[in-house]
Amino acid sequence: MPKIIEVVPNISEGRHKEVLQEIVSALESERDGARVLDVSSDADHNRSVLTLAGEPEQARRSVLRLFEAVLPRIDLRAHAGEHPRLGAVDVVPFVPVSGTTMSECVELARQVGEEVGRRFSVPVYLYEEAATSEHRRNLADVRKGEFEGLPDKMRDPRWRADFGPPEPHVSAGATAIGAREFLIAFNVNLGTPRLEIAEKIARAIRHSSGGLRYCKAMGVALKERNLAQVSINMTNFRKTPLHRVVEMIRCEASRHGVEVVGSEIVGLVPNDALLAAADFYLRLETFDSSQVLENRLSTPGE
Amino acid sequence: MPKIIEVVPNISEGRHKEVLQEIVSALESERDGARVLDVSSDADHNRSVLTLAGEPEQARRSVLRLFEAVLPRIDLRAHAGEHPRLGAVDVVPFVPVSGTTMSECVELARQVGEEVGRRFSVPVYLYEEAATSEHRRNLADVRKGEFEGLPDKMRDPRWRADFGPPEPHVSAGATAIGAREFLIAFNVNLGTPRLEIAEKIARAIRHSSGGLRYCKAMGVALKERNLAQVSINMTNFRKTPLHRVVEMIRCEASRHGVEVVGSEIVGLVPNDALLAAADFYLRLETFDSSQVLENRLSTPGE
Repeated sequence: MPKIIEVVPNISEGRHKEVLQEIVSALESERDGARVLDVSSDADHNRSVLTLAGEPEQARRSVLRLFEAVLPRIDLRAHAGEHPRLGAVDVVPFVPVSGTTMSECVELARQVGEEVGRRFSVPVYLYEEAATSEHRRNLADVRKGEFEGLPDKMRDPRWRADFGPPEPHVSAGATAIGAREFLIAFNVNLGTPRLEIAEKIARAIRHSSGGLRYCKAMGVALKERNLAQVSINMTNFRKTPLHRVVEMIRCEASRHGVEVVGSEIVGLVPNDALLAAADFYLRLETFDSSQVLENRLSTPGE
Repeated sequence: MPKIIEVVPNISEGRHKEVLQEIVSALESERDGARVLDVSSDADHNRSVLTLAGEPEQARRSVLRLFEAVLPRIDLRAHAGEHPRLGAVDVVPFVPVSGTTMSECVELARQVGEEVGRRFSVPVYLYEEAATSEHRRNLADVRKGEFEGLPDKMRDPRWRADFGPPEPHVSAGATAIGAREFLIAFNVNLGTPRLEIAEKIARAIRHSSGGLRYCKAMGVALKERNLAQVSINMTNFRKTPLHRVVEMIRCEASRHGVEVVGSEIVGLVPNDALLAAADFYLRLETFDSSQVLENRLSTPGE
């Protein structure tokens, strides 16, 4: 199996299509870079989320190329938008997808962070799994005060940057670089239009109100389909797998005399997350992902 | 997604390790050939089954390389073994795995068949999905009379070869080249040692006695585990999917008060077969395999 890492840089530009196009073109022209899978822009947030994937070295190269392309084009001194942001390249999470581990992504975040600080003079904070101390783990805390508050924040020894200069980059602020698990957006549709049932189920399954550790959920009314939906973010599909969420929802729904009528995955999903569901429901005893023919083809030398 | 085709050549040599090793080495040294995933030899049958996979052009190149390596090394005039065989390279089925279709495999079988007939003077019969008439579809009919009966058989106009000379190759006989679906070997374990229950369930689910179209099954006693097992060959997982077999077994077993305690896939399985099971059990509504992140990486240009 090749090592595959997802990188999801968030950049502080969501309004000027031609600027975005230049940045995306720079990434796409990077030889041996990661593949650009998706670009989602939001004008109100004035922010774009890029989704790339590839081998670790390709991911590294693409992030450096991204900084090269962004620094001359995005100036935070002239930036306004609803979403909190720290810098021109605001956040860069590395995500293990297959054939690799979280600790490899943490290592990569640190290596890229060091290079960004040194080559571009942009201060870098390591966050989430890559954080160097507990108070920097949560991205919201790292971003608190935003671009405008950086000069003060960085004078506090607790908020000295992990890499790069001791003061913000004049136009690009600072960047948070980290490692986290893959996020799966997953919705489950109920055979009822009653929103309050979806809300009750959401409360039952989500971590914040006593449910599954890596599950966020809320109830949503799908007016056109006359259905209520449990809308879920799964933040660690290896520890809280899809089938466990579906079966818990089925069980809670039946207590209200309601059935699960369907589900949907929004956007991308790692192959392993679906193989784990097949493994569970087929009651496989000794399944090994090297039995998947496609995986055998991409394993170097046997 | 890259096009992936499996090729499963059966050759008439299962006793001389050094001869087999030379043949396998020739395949492995083929630049841009298909990947050799498995070699299984049987001394009683005096026969070996090679499993290769790769893109269509790689599969084509490997089969031609196989003939080059086999012709000087295997002489059917000196061959004995229990398994019926027509030639030194006995059978070559092409199997669609992903990103390709059965009709592409049929086309490939014909193209390779023509090349084998022309370059190696070995008569070629097209069989199964690639057959040019109904009476040549079934491999057992094509192979009837075996190597020794070929001179007579080939004088019958109904058994003129599809490609190559009108008489057998003196030492290599003839070859059957065809296209078929992927075969999944799948076993389901029951929570009972009673073999007769596994046999009853096997009769219920298999095609030959009234069951599912692309399912072969028999009951087996697993003495060491004190369990009965339904042992299954699935000959078309797209039309008779894994989940339908498991659910039918579960239903029949419960009629005897018995549970399905586990299952196992023997050997390789295409990723699509497992994704289909996940899709069914998670009740996905609009799943598309391009949502699998790994598939997006291997799609050329988006």
